[in-house]
Amino acid sequence: MSDNNINNNNDVVIAVLAGSTSDESVYKKTIDVLEKEKISYELKILSAHRDPKKLDDYIKNCKALVYIAIAGLSAALPGVIASKTNRPVIGVPVSAKLGGLDALLSIVQMPPKVPVACVGIDRGENAAYLAIRILDLMKK
Amino acid sequence: MSDNNINNNNDVVIAVLAGSTSDESVYKKTIDVLEKEKISYELKILSAHRDPKKLDDYIKNCKALVYIAIAGLSAALPGVIASKTNRPVIGVPVSAKLGGLDALLSIVQMPPKVPVACVGIDRGENAAYLAIRILDLMKK
Amino acid sequence: MSDNNINNNNDVVIAVLAGSTSDESVYKKTIDVLEKEKISYELKILSAHRDPKKLDDYIKNCKALVYIAIAGLSAALPGVIASKTNRPVIGVPVSAKLGGLDALLSIVQMPPKVPVACVGIDRGENAAYLAIRILDLMKK
Amino acid sequence: MSDNNINNNNDVVIAVLAGSTSDESVYKKTIDVLEKEKISYELKILSAHRDPKKLDDYIKNCKALVYIAIAGLSAALPGVIASKTNRPVIGVPVSAKLGGLDALLSIVQMPPKVPVACVGIDRGENAAYLAIRILDLMKK
Amino acid sequence: MSDNNINNNNDVVIAVLAGSTSDESVYKKTIDVLEKEKISYELKILSAHRDPKKLDDYIKNCKALVYIAIAGLSAALPGVIASKTNRPVIGVPVSAKLGGLDALLSIVQMPPKVPVACVGIDRGENAAYLAIRILDLMKK
Amino acid sequence: MSDNNINNNNDVVIAVLAGSTSDESVYKKTIDVLEKEKISYELKILSAHRDPKKLDDYIKNCKALVYIAIAGLSAALPGVIASKTNRPVIGVPVSAKLGGLDALLSIVQMPPKVPVACVGIDRGENAAYLAIRILDLMKK
Amino acid sequence: MSDNNINNNNDVVIAVLAGSTSDESVYKKTIDVLEKEKISYELKILSAHRDPKKLDDYIKNCKALVYIAIAGLSAALPGVIASKTNRPVIGVPVSAKLGGLDALLSIVQMPPKVPVACVGIDRGENAAYLAIRILDLMKK
Amino acid sequence: MSDNNINNNNDVVIAVLAGSTSDESVYKKTIDVLEKEKISYELKILSAHRDPKKLDDYIKNCKALVYIAIAGLSAALPGVIASKTNRPVIGVPVSAKLGGLDALLSIVQMPPKVPVACVGIDRGENAAYLAIRILDLMKK
Repeated sequence: MSDNNINNNNDVVIAVLAGSTSDESVYKKTIDVLEKEKISYELKILSAHRDPKKLDDYIKNCKALVYIAIAGLSAALPGVIASKTNRPVIGVPVSAKLGGLDALLSIVQMPPKVPVACVGIDRGENAAYLAIRILDLMKK
Repeated sequence: MSDNNINNNNDVVIAVLAGSTSDESVYKKTIDVLEKEKISYELKILSAHRDPKKLDDYIKNCKALVYIAIAGLSAALPGVIASKTNRPVIGVPVSAKLGGLDALLSIVQMPPKVPVACVGIDRGENAAYLAIRILDLMKK
Repeated sequence: MSDNNINNNNDVVIAVLAGSTSDESVYKKTIDVLEKEKISYELKILSAHRDPKKLDDYIKNCKALVYIAIAGLSAALPGVIASKTNRPVIGVPVSAKLGGLDALLSIVQMPPKVPVACVGIDRGENAAYLAIRILDLMKK
Repeated sequence: MSDNNINNNNDVVIAVLAGSTSDESVYKKTIDVLEKEKISYELKILSAHRDPKKLDDYIKNCKALVYIAIAGLSAALPGVIASKTNRPVIGVPVSAKLGGLDALLSIVQMPPKVPVACVGIDRGENAAYLAIRILDLMKK
Repeated sequence: MSDNNINNNNDVVIAVLAGSTSDESVYKKTIDVLEKEKISYELKILSAHRDPKKLDDYIKNCKALVYIAIAGLSAALPGVIASKTNRPVIGVPVSAKLGGLDALLSIVQMPPKVPVACVGIDRGENAAYLAIRILDLMKK
Repeated sequence: MSDNNINNNNDVVIAVLAGSTSDESVYKKTIDVLEKEKISYELKILSAHRDPKKLDDYIKNCKALVYIAIAGLSAALPGVIASKTNRPVIGVPVSAKLGGLDALLSIVQMPPKVPVACVGIDRGENAAYLAIRILDLMKK
Repeated sequence: MSDNNINNNNDVVIAVLAGSTSDESVYKKTIDVLEKEKISYELKILSAHRDPKKLDDYIKNCKALVYIAIAGLSAALPGVIASKTNRPVIGVPVSAKLGGLDALLSIVQMPPKVPVACVGIDRGENAAYLAIRILDLMKK
Repeated sequence: MSDNNINNNNDVVIAVLAGSTSDESVYKKTIDVLEKEKISYELKILSAHRDPKKLDDYIKNCKALVYIAIAGLSAALPGVIASKTNRPVIGVPVSAKLGGLDALLSIVQMPPKVPVACVGIDRGENAAYLAIRILDLMKK
């Protein structure tokens, strides 16, 4: 899809954050695509609700160009990140309860000015594919 | 219901936070009960997504015993507050879209260890009545 | 989280009521937290619909400071308790049918003046954590 | 449909209970049918959540053969009545929030042994027609 | 609950109809209660959609006092029966798809004048208990 | 779209049935398309639940090639017609309650062997356009 | 049901398209009916989203009289086909997430003038039965 | 937010496509932000279902860096665009029926490899803000 030479200095290009290790089956799909496409990334397990300070610190020091945030239930993680960075934030709802409808609505229904780019329920791979489309714009 | 003498030193007993002035019809119901019951409160319009730093600062310095957080859509406000205080946090979902189902699920489906006490959609008065039940325990 | 010395006289501090023994996986989470935090509690299996008189009698004589009511389907238990006590009542919806949406709506959509503090679907542990936040106010 | 001579002694044959005067547009439909069909009835506004004792007393002394209970939101009224009488109880969900889905699920999803006969959302007239079908069995 | 001597002449008192043999786990619950309570019944597997003529004929000749109709999906069976008899018809939604929400809405949302008494999803036993409450009225 | 000469003998080509005159805004859209396309049709207001015998008689004598059935709530009309004819039956759900979700599920979730061709909620015009696509096959 | 001699020249009468091989359990039901009824068909696995050009080419050259399109999630396949042919298009929603509600709404809620004939969730056999009803019109 | 000099040659930077002029209240919000931020854009009203060829031609010749696609009901527009370009595609669900749940699910539940960045229901302004975050990456 691309030669992705934007990350040949090994800097983190994409920050992948998941709310819990129980989301592994979803963020595994994200990482598999990023590795196959040779995009430099960093994976962090940080809950918006249980680790708010660590999350703050992480975002302040993060050099990533795009964030991918994966969460279930009251999935505040993508929105909280979007409120603290100007980078694009991609949200992935995880189906923990109600088939994932709770996480989908929590992620997608953001208020004006704080956008999150929501992809499908449990669709970790599409978060990576969307990030690649965004990064590809920088190669021109 | 009670003489509510716990707030006779005029300290703020309840912090009422709403995500937006568009939630006025709901937080008005909360305030009407608190005023009628003579409970000292402070109202702040602060969005979890648009004012994250102001919200952090507010919570750090807030002496309130109970928080009431009112929000619509991806209603992260109650959960974010609950992640930054050990006080009880009461959440009120506002019906902005989908009849309020989005806000209800965003508020109630919190992960383990970060509880929010959710009341009914647009039911600002019940947040106040629940807070009063909690405060009444302190009079014994 | 606290030394919880409020219950060193072995009085029941929290009444945990479940509508059915089939809710065990949920109330087990509540009890595990209460035991770990050394909060005195009493567990009763009482259905709002099948044991209305026993429930009435129990509430009349109950000295608990906070109620935790766990129920599925037409989950009337938390609301019925809230209508017969002035204590804070925490409701936990159980996912028996429709992913628990029926119980969630039955618990959270209470009418004015009879508030229930609803936590997430099957989220028994958060009912305990919320109760602890409420009880901690009494230590000041 | 019938001559309905079962109520010619002016005893109350059907007890119509509504949770709130705000349900008037629905219980009006019930009453209109009962009056047209000359069925003796009694209308009471009693909330399961706000008037539990009055409701208990009413049911204990009520001679009605069939109950019709009309309620919105966390519509506990029909189920609570069904738990305290052996008479048939017909429930009518009112569309106050979420199009009435909350009331529908609260009324219909009753646990084993405590049945409620639920009719359609806001369908007060069908509660009356169902009651008439039941009463007609007694004329044989 | 009652001595149920109304069926000691072995006439069919309750007609139990299910749309498909795949609904067995639900109508089994109905029958178990009826047998335990010694109520005379007849079980028929007849689909409103696949056997409309057999269903017509059955209803025309049926002497049952109460119908219990059990169906999933586009659950037309209870409503079709209610349109062809003046007897009370109890409907039981079966969870074949969408957790039974399709069947619930198909059964309960009947138009004016053709009432169906809907009980909970998969709640076959409550259809029997409701029928018994209705039949008990005839013993006075 | 076609010259539609299949109906130049004035025979009824399409039978348009609506459950109630309250569905007029929807069946008006159907008829407008049929008239513009010069397709011979007949409109009947017949409820599956309130006029079952008239409906039976109508279907038995109907020479229409395609049925369009329009209904809200427990929308049994399309399915009942499909169970009594071998002609294609197109169903149109009407949004009377719950945004039309009840009618949509009642129409589309048909059991095996009794298909209904469901179009969108309140989408009367598409029922006509679908019928035209079907009739156009006969011109080859 | 019919002798189906319209396809005795072995031309493809029905084009069955599925969005993915993961939909096999559903399109298998379609094919089983078509084979039993001796209707000539062609099965293609073509995604509206991943193979848009192949899909275009296929439709341009396809001589089929009726299309059956089977898809889950954002099920665009039936609608995209309907936008590129004047033949009747039957859509079958597959339950991959949310019980199939996403696919159902994606298929059925088509805009004016581009109708899709939607059948029930996972109901591949009814797509075939509906197609047969349509084809049977041509035998007159 | 940015000086946005990337579009000072007046090339179209963002393509805004809406499925219908009835979506104007939503795409107006998008355009207002883009104009205020001085981002070059082009607005086209093109339906995925009614103008498939025009849409194909438009995408083939479009030089835009980011697409914003706004649609209601079976909202196929964003997904169809995403299947024909490698550029990032942002989808905005419009609330035409069912509160916009149909459009939301149609847009967000895309299959693997064809991502759409979905924002909130009727949230046209956030599509613009998300596009700006993406374009800002190119200024480094």
